[in-house]
Amino acid sequence: MKKILFKNVFLNGTETDVLVSGNRFEKISPCIKISDTENAEIVSAKNLAILPSFCNAHTHAAMTLLRGYADDMELFKWLKEHIWPFEAKLSARDIYEGSRLAILEMIRSGTTFFNDMYFESAETVRAARELGIRACVGMTVTNFTGEEKIEKMFARLRELPKGGAVGDDGLVRFAIAPHAVYTVSEKLWLRCAELARERGVLLHIHLSETKKEVADCVAEHGVSPVRWLDSLGVLGENVVAAHVVHVDDEEIEILRERGVTIAHNPVSNMKLASGVFRAETLSARGAKIALGTDGTASNNNLDMREEMKFAALLAKVGGNPEAVPAEEVFSWATRNGFRAFGIDAGEIAEGKLADAVFVDLNNERMFPNHNLISNWVYSADTRALRHVICDGKFLMRDGIVPAEDEILSAARELPSLKK
Amino acid sequence: MKKILFKNVFLNGTETDVLVSGNRFEKISPCIKISDTENAEIVSAKNLAILPSFCNAHTHAAMTLLRGYADDMELFKWLKEHIWPFEAKLSARDIYEGSRLAILEMIRSGTTFFNDMYFESAETVRAARELGIRACVGMTVTNFTGEEKIEKMFARLRELPKGGAVGDDGLVRFAIAPHAVYTVSEKLWLRCAELARERGVLLHIHLSETKKEVADCVAEHGVSPVRWLDSLGVLGENVVAAHVVHVDDEEIEILRERGVTIAHNPVSNMKLASGVFRAETLSARGAKIALGTDGTASNNNLDMREEMKFAALLAKVGGNPEAVPAEEVFSWATRNGFRAFGIDAGEIAEGKLADAVFVDLNNERMFPNHNLISNWVYSADTRALRHVICDGKFLMRDGIVPAEDEILSAARELPSLKK
Repeated sequence: MKKILFKNVFLNGTETDVLVSGNRFEKISPCIKISDTENAEIVSAKNLAILPSFCNAHTHAAMTLLRGYADDMELFKWLKEHIWPFEAKLSARDIYEGSRLAILEMIRSGTTFFNDMYFESAETVRAARELGIRACVGMTVTNFTGEEKIEKMFARLRELPKGGAVGDDGLVRFAIAPHAVYTVSEKLWLRCAELARERGVLLHIHLSETKKEVADCVAEHGVSPVRWLDSLGVLGENVVAAHVVHVDDEEIEILRERGVTIAHNPVSNMKLASGVFRAETLSARGAKIALGTDGTASNNNLDMREEMKFAALLAKVGGNPEAVPAEEVFSWATRNGFRAFGIDAGEIAEGKLADAVFVDLNNERMFPNHNLISNWVYSADTRALRHVICDGKFLMRDGIVPAEDEILSAARELPSLKK
Repeated sequence: MKKILFKNVFLNGTETDVLVSGNRFEKISPCIKISDTENAEIVSAKNLAILPSFCNAHTHAAMTLLRGYADDMELFKWLKEHIWPFEAKLSARDIYEGSRLAILEMIRSGTTFFNDMYFESAETVRAARELGIRACVGMTVTNFTGEEKIEKMFARLRELPKGGAVGDDGLVRFAIAPHAVYTVSEKLWLRCAELARERGVLLHIHLSETKKEVADCVAEHGVSPVRWLDSLGVLGENVVAAHVVHVDDEEIEILRERGVTIAHNPVSNMKLASGVFRAETLSARGAKIALGTDGTASNNNLDMREEMKFAALLAKVGGNPEAVPAEEVFSWATRNGFRAFGIDAGEIAEGKLADAVFVDLNNERMFPNHNLISNWVYSADTRALRHVICDGKFLMRDGIVPAEDEILSAARELPSLKK
């Protein structure tokens, strides 16, 4: 089994060695010795800190192609007049290249897993598999998807092993992504939920993002989105719900009881003026919170470090400067996220999957090192990242992502981006 | 005169050449030819965009030493229990090294001017002069400064030429910085304002940052901070007021009429839960708005790119996604800022001072280039910066700031940072 020994890395306030064997952390201890007979590479990590990599709990990877395409406007106008017309032109090739661009950006900002929802999901799966990142890729389902397409997706899910994994390494899997209460009928919700249970896959949904969504749902179904989906039996531990901005205390309790994971997207919620996530209350009530960037079109990047800072600061806008400290958003972005997706990562500890970032302590924004997590959440940027490992392999080494130039060149050739 | 010819740089949607002569942009046009007799260096800027550099309108540079020292707590507790005790230990050497660290960070994030307020201002001036950045350095005055120290500062200002400039190049100058209404007496405000007028220097102040500040001022003086300072005749075109969170419509009108520049600090206001800046209203009423990072202890970095994103998104939290679009915060951070400080920079145009950043269009976060300003405000980070020029000279070239290693090494040796 391939081994990597990181020497003199900074972890929990002290210098230590970290031995990766295969895809897991085998041993963490100062002065690890390895024999000549072991197949181990030794990497000096002097002046680097090791931290868990990020779990991006909600995104639309291929929307990198729409970065900056339309900004500073209201959600439904933005969707109807700009985003949907652009998306109508996108081909499978666009989705593949847009996904690769997104994965490049995620690797460069320290993310090793993303939970996706978009069209042509097989292309995003292909891109993730090729580039070695973990992903859960939702097959998006709406009332406009068409029966034939839905049947094809569902047939694909039935072919796959339980859990929806593609390939033997378990890094990439499919999920079902019924888009939202305003685009998916009751019948379709029930079909999706049933199949998800049967195949042991996640249901990745948008939920209670805007006031309008809630008001329309109440007008149509007599109850709010959370209550409606709960009455249909959709909500459970396999549900990852993005946004969840407009919920009352009773709905928070429903989500907690059902074990739903909430993917908080502070930047997107702020940019589209969707409302302020009830971070402090949700945290106090013990809701399962993870963090996501949403798509590039509403962010406009996929940088989980920046997202942590926004999450921590947005939580304080209500008036409490002690709400959601740095350590807490850090756990949303790492440990909590991976746990929600059943991935044994998000912590640097013996036996855990070897997903991690190595941060340069000589970077001016990581100095002085009064508090590493505070520096990482509130001060750093991607320039401080030296290496990114996923499942025991380098995705970025010494700031280099091998496929970078090829990904950018291919994206430049896309007909959809030519003026 | 030293000339630099930037070839094939991206500006306003097209490729052009930019000729810098001495400290100004002499000519901007495609295919500029220069004769062999001219002392010109030619720099290829293919795939780089040129943009104005940042004006950081309010900071406390040397507080880099307190980065991450205490987070996630209320302003007065934070000041009294953590910041002030740490500051009491700081020596002139600390201020010098902390300022150099801050300037390094500012250069690396594209800032070429900062408006500072702290102790031992001569040390910050020295650091700025050595490193070639523009600065306006406020001599901080409070009721606790002591008469002897105040007299010494004021004497120094009287020795300097009108305007407070230090040295012939005009890059660095002094200002007077009466700290805030809760730390400066009426008599001291009047002395500061008078001397500032007499010496033609700026008054750099904190104003209406928290509800407590306003309530305490009303209790003590019968009126709010803006009204009190206006009644003293302090407010005028030479005033740069940081924060200005808690103001009513009439106070906004007072500030506008007096020509006061407001230095907005969204990250600091969010982190300390000080309240939400009335961005949309202030903008609609024609207030003079610039942007600043505040000190590192309450941010925790000096990154004006990140500050722009926070400013644009915080403005939307009130519910209007069209409030303060990317172009507007960009002008706060560049053109508006430099104008407020009487510096003929902030625009890439013939005749203007040659302060600029060069941004890598091959950076994955600057692609696709649907909208350069949107990408710069909402997506980029400092990794996209290739060069930074100030007053016609490189402060960073090809990602290298010459003094970087020496600055970090010197800072590591500070006794105040040793555990």
